[in-house]
Amino acid sequence: MKTQPECFDCLLGQAFAALQLTGIDKDQQTKILKDVFGVFQAADAAATPAAIATLVNKIIQDQTGVVDIYRDYKEQSTQQALQLYPELKKLIEVSDDPLDTAVRLSIAGNIIDVINYDDYDLLKTVERAIQEPLDGSSIEELRTALHSARHVLFLADNAGETVFDRLLIETLAIPVTYAVKGGPMMNDATWEDAKAAGVDQVAKLVTVGEPSIGILPDYFSLEFRELLANAELIISKGQANYETLEELNYSAFFLLQIKCIHVADGSGLPMGRMALIHKQV
Amino acid sequence: MKTQPECFDCLLGQAFAALQLTGIDKDQQTKILKDVFGVFQAADAAATPAAIATLVNKIIQDQTGVVDIYRDYKEQSTQQALQLYPELKKLIEVSDDPLDTAVRLSIAGNIIDVINYDDYDLLKTVERAIQEPLDGSSIEELRTALHSARHVLFLADNAGETVFDRLLIETLAIPVTYAVKGGPMMNDATWEDAKAAGVDQVAKLVTVGEPSIGILPDYFSLEFRELLANAELIISKGQANYETLEELNYSAFFLLQIKCIHVADGSGLPMGRMALIHKQV
Repeated sequence: MKTQPECFDCLLGQAFAALQLTGIDKDQQTKILKDVFGVFQAADAAATPAAIATLVNKIIQDQTGVVDIYRDYKEQSTQQALQLYPELKKLIEVSDDPLDTAVRLSIAGNIIDVINYDDYDLLKTVERAIQEPLDGSSIEELRTALHSARHVLFLADNAGETVFDRLLIETLAIPVTYAVKGGPMMNDATWEDAKAAGVDQVAKLVTVGEPSIGILPDYFSLEFRELLANAELIISKGQANYETLEELNYSAFFLLQIKCIHVADGSGLPMGRMALIHKQV
Repeated sequence: MKTQPECFDCLLGQAFAALQLTGIDKDQQTKILKDVFGVFQAADAAATPAAIATLVNKIIQDQTGVVDIYRDYKEQSTQQALQLYPELKKLIEVSDDPLDTAVRLSIAGNIIDVINYDDYDLLKTVERAIQEPLDGSSIEELRTALHSARHVLFLADNAGETVFDRLLIETLAIPVTYAVKGGPMMNDATWEDAKAAGVDQVAKLVTVGEPSIGILPDYFSLEFRELLANAELIISKGQANYETLEELNYSAFFLLQIKCIHVADGSGLPMGRMALIHKQV
């Protein structure tokens, strides 16, 4: 999805929120914002919002010297989710359809996102995830794909959400490689965040390469490039991965909350809903 | 008031809203937004938001060819306010303190502002204006100043609001020069807007010079420069005039709604309130 005029408002809001968290003063904020405007001005017409956000976040990291801007928030998100883990695990175990429940919970976990929500109600989202119909594709398509796959490449999104992904991975019962960011990038899950959520106990951890928002080939490690090229079955979490992987030529199951009008328009699904989207190329 | 980091979010929102109104397509919007980012990037650290907004609006006018972007909105605002005119006139006539009521109504009229409010309730604002205490300075300071002045320079703000200003001018009962913009600039009142509100029947109309947001010396006509320098008593409407005139060395009575956190901080008055501020230099 290429960047729409409205996206710049969102990108600026994200940059501003990150600058606030670094604790620098207003004059320094303005100075760095001007470099952010330079990135906006120079952005290629076909660039995705994720590609622009990546450059913006690198500027903020470089110029403030604060690399892991969302560290505290990510740790809190993970702890909050881990407290729910036993209860959610039980929900899946007693479910008539554990895969369906685990998929829904993994999508529910995508609500953990300070970038798009100032405030969210995780428990309410879990309840909603269990009860409401899933938008997009049928869970049966995923079930069928899982039957014939020997391995899953799972593309992580935010820290905290990782705990919900762990529950899904435990339910899949086939080997999973869990791809996280190679370093801090907004509130995206890193190796440490995945470990803190216990994902390392149930999946092989890899990084996609250099830190970036979404799945951007410019930042891929050689290892991840090969993993992606040879993936039998891809499960991708969140909007940024959806936006960016959609540009590439891969079949995948996307599990996400529809948080933005352009993703809603692009997917044909309503704003604010939880979606399982099976893209076949 | 110099531009704060948060101001850019507001400035971008205004630019985007204006672009939407011009009816150009999304690719053209993005192209023009990039020039807007160029203005943001190049902005002087001491520039006011009004000065930046002026440059941004000129770019949008030039590149879209749509000069009077808010024309329909301004006409509707004026018509809406004119419908209330007889009722408001009566309110002033039966008031124990016509000056106090007319000042409050003129401040109430400052709510007519598509730039800061998507939606507002004009009648509710009028009711509030009549009942609530005015923040800032005492009406008695204005009354005293009016007793010794032979002439008032009245700095207009938005179209529609002009009708409320006319009611105040009719109540002042001394000669008034009403300064409007020399051409379309967002929803600011022009000569035509003031005439449509009937202000030309009760005051001498002048323009401040080239169209600009607020009162910016770079755009003054020679006539207005002299008027301002020799003004006995200045009544200034709205935030942008307050923000910009505050930077210059003039005593004035500012009548405005506090619409932004920085104006609230700068004036020491609460957000969302109606204020009469007497600045003495």
